[in-house]
Amino acid sequence: MQALSASQDIPMDTMRANVFCGKDDFSIREVPMPKAGPNEAVIKITLTTICGTDLHIVRGEYPVRPGLVIGHEPVGVIVDLGPGVRGHRIGDRVLVGAITPCGQCRGCLSGDLSQCGHGEGYEALGGWRFGNTINGSQAEYLLVPDANANLATIPDELTDEQVVLLADIASTGFSGAESGKVRIGDTVVVFAQGPIGLCSSIGAKLMGASLVIGVDGDDSRLAFAKKMGVDVVLDYRSQDVVQEIKRLTGGGADVAIEALGTQETWENCLRSLRPGGTLSSLGVYSGKLNIPYEYFGAGLADYKVVTTLCPGGKERMRRLMEMVRTKRVDLTPLLTHTFALDDIQEAYALFGDRREGVMKVAIRP
Amino acid sequence: MQALSASQDIPMDTMRANVFCGKDDFSIREVPMPKAGPNEAVIKITLTTICGTDLHIVRGEYPVRPGLVIGHEPVGVIVDLGPGVRGHRIGDRVLVGAITPCGQCRGCLSGDLSQCGHGEGYEALGGWRFGNTINGSQAEYLLVPDANANLATIPDELTDEQVVLLADIASTGFSGAESGKVRIGDTVVVFAQGPIGLCSSIGAKLMGASLVIGVDGDDSRLAFAKKMGVDVVLDYRSQDVVQEIKRLTGGGADVAIEALGTQETWENCLRSLRPGGTLSSLGVYSGKLNIPYEYFGAGLADYKVVTTLCPGGKERMRRLMEMVRTKRVDLTPLLTHTFALDDIQEAYALFGDRREGVMKVAIRP
Amino acid sequence: MQALSASQDIPMDTMRANVFCGKDDFSIREVPMPKAGPNEAVIKITLTTICGTDLHIVRGEYPVRPGLVIGHEPVGVIVDLGPGVRGHRIGDRVLVGAITPCGQCRGCLSGDLSQCGHGEGYEALGGWRFGNTINGSQAEYLLVPDANANLATIPDELTDEQVVLLADIASTGFSGAESGKVRIGDTVVVFAQGPIGLCSSIGAKLMGASLVIGVDGDDSRLAFAKKMGVDVVLDYRSQDVVQEIKRLTGGGADVAIEALGTQETWENCLRSLRPGGTLSSLGVYSGKLNIPYEYFGAGLADYKVVTTLCPGGKERMRRLMEMVRTKRVDLTPLLTHTFALDDIQEAYALFGDRREGVMKVAIRP
Amino acid sequence: MQALSASQDIPMDTMRANVFCGKDDFSIREVPMPKAGPNEAVIKITLTTICGTDLHIVRGEYPVRPGLVIGHEPVGVIVDLGPGVRGHRIGDRVLVGAITPCGQCRGCLSGDLSQCGHGEGYEALGGWRFGNTINGSQAEYLLVPDANANLATIPDELTDEQVVLLADIASTGFSGAESGKVRIGDTVVVFAQGPIGLCSSIGAKLMGASLVIGVDGDDSRLAFAKKMGVDVVLDYRSQDVVQEIKRLTGGGADVAIEALGTQETWENCLRSLRPGGTLSSLGVYSGKLNIPYEYFGAGLADYKVVTTLCPGGKERMRRLMEMVRTKRVDLTPLLTHTFALDDIQEAYALFGDRREGVMKVAIRP
Repeated sequence: MQALSASQDIPMDTMRANVFCGKDDFSIREVPMPKAGPNEAVIKITLTTICGTDLHIVRGEYPVRPGLVIGHEPVGVIVDLGPGVRGHRIGDRVLVGAITPCGQCRGCLSGDLSQCGHGEGYEALGGWRFGNTINGSQAEYLLVPDANANLATIPDELTDEQVVLLADIASTGFSGAESGKVRIGDTVVVFAQGPIGLCSSIGAKLMGASLVIGVDGDDSRLAFAKKMGVDVVLDYRSQDVVQEIKRLTGGGADVAIEALGTQETWENCLRSLRPGGTLSSLGVYSGKLNIPYEYFGAGLADYKVVTTLCPGGKERMRRLMEMVRTKRVDLTPLLTHTFALDDIQEAYALFGDRREGVMKVAIRP
Repeated sequence: MQALSASQDIPMDTMRANVFCGKDDFSIREVPMPKAGPNEAVIKITLTTICGTDLHIVRGEYPVRPGLVIGHEPVGVIVDLGPGVRGHRIGDRVLVGAITPCGQCRGCLSGDLSQCGHGEGYEALGGWRFGNTINGSQAEYLLVPDANANLATIPDELTDEQVVLLADIASTGFSGAESGKVRIGDTVVVFAQGPIGLCSSIGAKLMGASLVIGVDGDDSRLAFAKKMGVDVVLDYRSQDVVQEIKRLTGGGADVAIEALGTQETWENCLRSLRPGGTLSSLGVYSGKLNIPYEYFGAGLADYKVVTTLCPGGKERMRRLMEMVRTKRVDLTPLLTHTFALDDIQEAYALFGDRREGVMKVAIRP
Repeated sequence: MQALSASQDIPMDTMRANVFCGKDDFSIREVPMPKAGPNEAVIKITLTTICGTDLHIVRGEYPVRPGLVIGHEPVGVIVDLGPGVRGHRIGDRVLVGAITPCGQCRGCLSGDLSQCGHGEGYEALGGWRFGNTINGSQAEYLLVPDANANLATIPDELTDEQVVLLADIASTGFSGAESGKVRIGDTVVVFAQGPIGLCSSIGAKLMGASLVIGVDGDDSRLAFAKKMGVDVVLDYRSQDVVQEIKRLTGGGADVAIEALGTQETWENCLRSLRPGGTLSSLGVYSGKLNIPYEYFGAGLADYKVVTTLCPGGKERMRRLMEMVRTKRVDLTPLLTHTFALDDIQEAYALFGDRREGVMKVAIRP
Repeated sequence: MQALSASQDIPMDTMRANVFCGKDDFSIREVPMPKAGPNEAVIKITLTTICGTDLHIVRGEYPVRPGLVIGHEPVGVIVDLGPGVRGHRIGDRVLVGAITPCGQCRGCLSGDLSQCGHGEGYEALGGWRFGNTINGSQAEYLLVPDANANLATIPDELTDEQVVLLADIASTGFSGAESGKVRIGDTVVVFAQGPIGLCSSIGAKLMGASLVIGVDGDDSRLAFAKKMGVDVVLDYRSQDVVQEIKRLTGGGADVAIEALGTQETWENCLRSLRPGGTLSSLGVYSGKLNIPYEYFGAGLADYKVVTTLCPGGKERMRRLMEMVRTKRVDLTPLLTHTFALDDIQEAYALFGDRREGVMKVAIRP
């Protein structure tokens, strides 16, 4: 019944979407409307964003197939529910995580939701499907797979703007601190204070760090981090940050979070740690990573290194929305710019050039 | 296609099953054949068992609705697959856990598969459905819900007898040791050496305990435990077991596992622990439990208490089958008796009376 | 050298101290001055407190030997250092935890500092010595055993008042949340909002709880908790708190912390949990504790129960002082009253009667 | 009293010891007898060994000061006890770990015993003192610092040979599996099957791995590993081990342990893992380590990497001795050769050249 009435609300059989066509080539095009099959849902996108990973995609640095709709931070309203989807109605406002685990494969049942194998086994990065292996959220409508595991109802009191950054930015950034197992009284340093690094800083503070140090080399990002509550910000252009971190922490940070993805930041992360500390690695590296001899293994220092993907699934989204609802965190200041879907080229240009102190760009279809 | 051809293999529209009719009243009856709906499967049972919990049910000590088919340890062959089930074919031999999580609700996505909320939230004991809230395995055929999360293919080299006890007994018993976080060098005591307690003893040894002590008051169970590799068995009828455990462990066990469910064993478990030790509680209690003043809280001894349900899901079953395949564990000696489905009354009688040194009774439909 | 010059600073060979003489009998008396032996230190107390446990002691509800000096929350200045003590000088301002682990016994080397066995094995509650098995801090001077593990230098920028409550109240209260493994997004309920319960509420918030609910039946404590940042306070005198907690948390709290020590609060804690939740038990019980049948074991709900003693040692104190230094927490509002050592009888009376909205009483020798 | 009588048992004021003099230059020399100061003990060495790290030292690849006595795997009898040492008597047989934590510094009190700061802070590798920063065990007598934390009494029923390899080899090797958090049903691969790698294989099996795969390129070590119970041994000279591991494990090992310290083995470890698996790194690297782009970070696969030092302290030694006493493990087959202290040059030559299928060389002063 629901699926039927829902179909009646969808007059067109095409929709507009941001399609990747090849290196440096993407645009808004008409594509077929999605339709919900078994265990699937379709949502009408009301707000989405551009992510740094999308820049890698349009620049041809991360491979996706031409013809794919990009984007993986979706907020919307349910317009179609396939057979087998429980607990939701047409018209529900929902947040969907960037990672959409099936919940039923070997990876998911082991708790590794990011390594979802879609029913069987596990697959490296298998949990990330939107704008990677299936059509994404920079569009009028979005097909949500394994909908039972991935539709998180938005509390009425929260706006789209308050929750859209939870889908990826907050979930990934916080997980940098969570994987680092930050404890009450820990000192934490975060290398790079872009959207994800800043969320790691916020996450470390939420978990009880006694001191959070943010490192960057961009004046506006350093100022923004300070404004968002990071205790100390360090500019790597003007000082020896490793030495300063060791001084501030009395010998090295308990946890260092890498949120950029370069040899230099990774190595500085490791050098900033106390013996036995934990490096939590979020960045995406674009080449071989060298681990300096004197700081790993031969340093014999019981280091721990964890890499983390964005955690997903509706329960993760529910928990993060609760943190917003009870005012533990407010990420709306990061939404510095908003564009219409048809203006998405302009949005990518501003975001890619880091103009006007941009942190995150919202797209409203 | 598969569902169709499968249906052709099923000639009758009723099947024989062990139906609970009321306190002390159960029998083999003709009931409707199950048919696989979306995300469901039907298996032809090739081997199942009677569990101690089934005794509680038929005695009216654990409430289930009259008309329910009992049993929750199923091994069988897939005969029907509903739409949406991936990765399996008609004819696959499968083991299904006693707990059948959906993988997609709040409980499951949090890793609490036993508290499955069937798509939404969580539900105390919600993961246990077979022979509890839906028809169980003491029957010719069994409907498996959320089949994507619950069908574990049996390796060709393993027999039904080698895997049937993994569904509940081994999964629950081992989890007593796993929840107790047994480490290399720990001393572990297990109160009661019935099937689950014995599996806890085996699990503790598998995890690296330096000493495993089994306590019981039944000669055949003590002898059986010794035969299965338990280091020391203590008979509570003839000695002060708490004092002896303290002597053997140099002051108290690191982990004590309760696998019976009485005030006395629970209290002795607590008294057998070293300060700061862990009580892992598996038993089902039939009344108020008193925690003695001097051993909890006011004992100020940092005790940890965990209660554990049988872990389920196809990944758990796969892992346990691997342990059998590589000969880490062999539970076939516990299958002391086998009966045809039509003789199940006789089987319950023997199992309930603990006659002939029975440990577990297998039922072959 | 240091010990010698220190001795010269101590003119008298007796000191005034609060001596327990028997049930309802304690007073300020002249007792011998302590002198530092190997691995020991003596500090001149500059600030200490009265703890709820001290009330149990003077009322004869917790057994200590007559003649003992009471008190276990010491702040002071080092005046004597025995041979073997490293890294300190006469005149250093130090905070000493209520628990003074040796760091070198079986308990300590296993990480169970509260179960310190003083060089060998472990001992239930062995870590708590001050005012329990050796002379305590309600005195002019205090002998600190195992000084290498227990003297935490106070940063110059912090006052005695800012750190004195870390020795026990904050360390114990926070540990209620830490043992409960509070995670980002968890809902936490704390039963009783006295000093320790309130610190548990604060600790839960520090660790990222999305909602902290405080329960009490005392108007001034409810108001105080609200003022200190507890999200919701519930008065058990005027409502069904379990029902309200279930409503507020959507089915039950992830973590419930018991900070009073009665059958009723413990049972309500358990009833307030979601299936699979964690009960963190801090209270001291004065009789048998009944665990209700339907909520444990037979509830089959994977509950976890942890009891926690105050964590101690100089590293714990250092970490907590860092939390104060970086303004994550300010407990000075809890120090509602201050008395001179000679007026300690009056202080006990006010604290024992809970007059004038008293939370904690400071004693200044 | 004890110290005095002990002194009477020591007739000479010099002893023979293996002294490092410079690159490729070491020999048995007369050096001063150690004497126990506060918190120290002296033991008469009855059995010790040569470790692979000692080879690095004598070859000048790991820097220690000339004049130092080498060796860090000591078994002996107490002959001298300094003031402050509790719980021991002259004549006690003791095992001392290669790592000798103080138990009282910031590192130790945080549980990082290997990063012991000797009373204060922490120090990278600070826990390893014998034959590194203080005189070691290839000598007639050995001074044990922080004796309260480091003397583990040997049960009468165990011989020196049964326990000497626990000090380093077993403690380090097992910790490779422990840090990797091996669980029941995990698949584990260990690269290199020398003494430490073999102990990691044994440790993984002790913790419940369903399959342990050992990789090496030395016929005698592969045969030895098989004999010691490793399930599958792979010769990297004759096959693509990564491909074979993926086949055997159905897609990648849950845990990979690196026990050699080369770029190639480290990289193969990472490639052998399933997505989300754990690399436990024990090897000592002699240059920059390259992490391949496609397998870390950009592989976005939630890898965890842990490096581990040998755990130490008397409680660790006690636990490992219990594992020997209850016959969970027998490492005596690894003691393939024994030499007198005076023949130590010959022992180093044989061990360094890996002649005669040598695994470990015992030295008997």
